[in-house]
Amino acid sequence: MQLEFLGTGSGVPGKFRNVAATALKLLDECNSVWLFDCGEGTQQQILRSNLKPRKINKIFITHLHGDHIFGLPGLLSSRSFQGGDTPLTIYGPKGIADFVRVSLSVSQTKLAYKINFEELSQPGVVFEDDKFKVTMGELDHQITCYGFRIEEKDHQGELLVDKLKEANIPSGPVYGKIKNGETVTLDDGREINGQDFIGPAQKGRTVTIIGDTRSNPTSYNLAQNADVLVHESTFGKGESRLAHNYYHSTNMQAAKLATKAKVGRLLLTHVSARYTGKMAYELQNQAKTVFNNTKVVKDFDIVDIPFEKNN
Amino acid sequence: MQLEFLGTGSGVPGKFRNVAATALKLLDECNSVWLFDCGEGTQQQILRSNLKPRKINKIFITHLHGDHIFGLPGLLSSRSFQGGDTPLTIYGPKGIADFVRVSLSVSQTKLAYKINFEELSQPGVVFEDDKFKVTMGELDHQITCYGFRIEEKDHQGELLVDKLKEANIPSGPVYGKIKNGETVTLDDGREINGQDFIGPAQKGRTVTIIGDTRSNPTSYNLAQNADVLVHESTFGKGESRLAHNYYHSTNMQAAKLATKAKVGRLLLTHVSARYTGKMAYELQNQAKTVFNNTKVVKDFDIVDIPFEKNN
Ligand SMILES: [Zn+2]
Ligand SMILES: [Zn+2]
Repeated sequence: MQLEFLGTGSGVPGKFRNVAATALKLLDECNSVWLFDCGEGTQQQILRSNLKPRKINKIFITHLHGDHIFGLPGLLSSRSFQGGDTPLTIYGPKGIADFVRVSLSVSQTKLAYKINFEELSQPGVVFEDDKFKVTMGELDHQITCYGFRIEEKDHQGELLVDKLKEANIPSGPVYGKIKNGETVTLDDGREINGQDFIGPAQKGRTVTIIGDTRSNPTSYNLAQNADVLVHESTFGKGESRLAHNYYHSTNMQAAKLATKAKVGRLLLTHVSARYTGKMAYELQNQAKTVFNNTKVVKDFDIVDIPFEKNN
Repeated sequence: MQLEFLGTGSGVPGKFRNVAATALKLLDECNSVWLFDCGEGTQQQILRSNLKPRKINKIFITHLHGDHIFGLPGLLSSRSFQGGDTPLTIYGPKGIADFVRVSLSVSQTKLAYKINFEELSQPGVVFEDDKFKVTMGELDHQITCYGFRIEEKDHQGELLVDKLKEANIPSGPVYGKIKNGETVTLDDGREINGQDFIGPAQKGRTVTIIGDTRSNPTSYNLAQNADVLVHESTFGKGESRLAHNYYHSTNMQAAKLATKAKVGRLLLTHVSARYTGKMAYELQNQAKTVFNNTKVVKDFDIVDIPFEKNN
């Protein structure tokens, strides 16, 4: 599980930061990439990464501002052109389907795959399978804007094969039941509690991705105990009034949220073009005074999200 | 008058060629830039050029395929964000207004300037003022596709001030009439033919920009005697059957047209990603065997279009 930042700027593309797009790479977990927002030029950024458009099977749109959606028609077209033929689901506020449908129909683009649109309005679980659960919460931006909490489900503990062999328990279908923690009776009459022969469960990881927003209570709910919190940082220290007026956040507000929600790591993105070069480090250093494990990400940064170490 | 190539690729963006966009820089002539097509990422290409989005006051769209229009919403937004507040006209096939309007309304983008849409369907003159005339012709692509002939009007000859002084014609409002070539009577009774005191007129320049198309007769009409012909070259020598099937042209077809239409220079663009590096030179060398003054352009190439030398 990795995050790859394809666009870390705010509002309009700059020379050093493209507009919003963040890829959550779940290649080991489910051979998929989930994309969060898709500003103009995202497909060009992907060309410069090692992501494959056809692996993207879910796109989550936080809100409909142009810097978060204008790259969608082009990416969808290229995904088809480059051989993508498996369905793709787009989650986002009401209106996203209209934008995509009109763009594709005006340009007479025929895709080799089906798009499912999930236009969201009710906060809550928007996707769940045996591996992941995605919860949406509504933020406080000028237009409807969502944050997403992506929770990996806990991994079952591993079967302790050596311990089974020591106990002279012969391999066979019974191992499957033991792995599930069931109690089984062996041919020799012994009763075995599966729980004794599996290692500790591996806690799933949680990533929270917060769209453009003012400081707000929902972000806390989405971020609680996340391994990684991706948060916008359009403004810097001392600019909370500006941030409020423009429906955005400062780096300090993001850091306070990270502390309060007890997250593992804070990644600041959606950085204004006013903060170039060293000034972006300054944003990071300011935030570190409140939450030490903070990083201001750049385009093409890849951040690994490891499992918590089991004790 | 210069052409600046912002995107010279075909279909999908590649590592070396972005999708279609060509700027006609008319800074000396009318302090404007006219853009022909606007594929995704055109605003990012502009960031890497010295073009100013607010100088763009006309955008001509050859056809509605995504690689020619998906950069439009973003460029229009950034033009406003960067202080553009003068009206802009978009010329293109029916449907372009819908695409732009839906994109801007879904994203709740409010522009600081007015867009005039000129949805074209009748071939002929689509714009004319005292300096330029633009004529549109319909080409042969899978969907409605246009070519444009941009004709600069002839520049009046300059007033020969030294000759006037030699003839003892005193300066004053009469110079204005002489400059217009009128016949005037001086206070001393002399009758002066203005034509004798103005230099040769300067022939205006003509640029023809041909959208995606099969070889077709309209292109010839648009290209006749143009100083510069910008033509697509999606396919290479020996691929005319492929070109026909995909509604495109080969470099050789473009070169034949350039010869027949007696243009001054041929600029080949819309190059397939199959032709990288040296292979693009090969396209050029093949075409040169038919029309010598041929160049395959790259992204960010700037081509000057000088006046013809007066004899
Ligand atoms: Zn934004
Ligand atoms: Zn094209």
